[in-house]
Amino acid sequence: MKKSLGPRTLLHPTPVLAIGTYAQDGQPNVMTASWAGLCCSMPPCVAVSLRKATYSYGNIVRRKAFTVSLPSEQHVKHADFFGLITGRGTDKFAASGLTAVPSDKVDAPYVDEFPLVLECELLHTLEIGLHTLFVGEILNVLVDEKVLTPEGMTDLKKLQPLVFQPDLQAYYGIGECVGQAFSIGEKLQE
Amino acid sequence: MKKSLGPRTLLHPTPVLAIGTYAQDGQPNVMTASWAGLCCSMPPCVAVSLRKATYSYGNIVRRKAFTVSLPSEQHVKHADFFGLITGRGTDKFAASGLTAVPSDKVDAPYVDEFPLVLECELLHTLEIGLHTLFVGEILNVLVDEKVLTPEGMTDLKKLQPLVFQPDLQAYYGIGECVGQAFSIGEKLQE
Repeated sequence: MKKSLGPRTLLHPTPVLAIGTYAQDGQPNVMTASWAGLCCSMPPCVAVSLRKATYSYGNIVRRKAFTVSLPSEQHVKHADFFGLITGRGTDKFAASGLTAVPSDKVDAPYVDEFPLVLECELLHTLEIGLHTLFVGEILNVLVDEKVLTPEGMTDLKKLQPLVFQPDLQAYYGIGECVGQAFSIGEKLQE
Repeated sequence: MKKSLGPRTLLHPTPVLAIGTYAQDGQPNVMTASWAGLCCSMPPCVAVSLRKATYSYGNIVRRKAFTVSLPSEQHVKHADFFGLITGRGTDKFAASGLTAVPSDKVDAPYVDEFPLVLECELLHTLEIGLHTLFVGEILNVLVDEKVLTPEGMTDLKKLQPLVFQPDLQAYYGIGECVGQAFSIGEKLQE
């Protein structure tokens, strides 16, 4: 027998992403977002939802571009900091000591110290309610070689991405591999 | 110096979700989806992207509803199985031995054995490319009491949600808590 919790935003896991944009005056900004996920394979796209009240919202609408920089566990303080304050009147890169690098592909900066970066061009904007969903086409993925396996895949033990727990408002790490996809379920077919 | 991997669908973590729908003849169906995430706080909404070729796509378009059932690590074989075959001509619930329960809130079934369920009404449909993004308003969340903390929050150690690793196509568990959100970053402000 299941218990009803009512309508609420509860899903696991949710990601912890640093969204990089340029403000109207060209200053790099970055904010943390967790209402996000991959949303299309061809073209490769990511959906990121932001409140209209955020500084980044206007930045994305104007420049039609953003980056997604993925912090590691070692950056948990920086990831949280980017969600605590607004970029209006504060240079969050300078305040955090992290480095804004201009993307070669899109009109947005990324966080140099974070190991995985998606360079995204705005493809769709969907007004939902408090949040607006931005679909970004992933024009390129940048990655630190040290988090790759010898075969060129991302190694979660090295990348150590953060997980946001929405109802406890806490950050978690990733655990152990528990199975191979498109394979472990075949046993049920026998 | 970062390495360019080109355009690709790479983000961590991505969720492992069982999408419940009714077919035209009323048969319950379920499929696994990982291109998904929360996308609005008010109203609470989740975005789930499916290929048009899937059986579930037509089911959602017709019934304007779906559920999201979240498997635990113990259900990894079932979660994978739901993504391996189509529901056209196969009753995946019967084949897997799991139980379809009609939602009280929306016109869709959920997986009784999975500990967390979102009951969703279709709010928006966005055609992107190979995938179509469905925004579902979360009318209610159902949860097994045994995965809740005494305070009524989801306990990830008990819920044990799965993580999909897109480039290695593998499933992972959740690790340890590494910090409190809206708190651990305050140290950078000092």
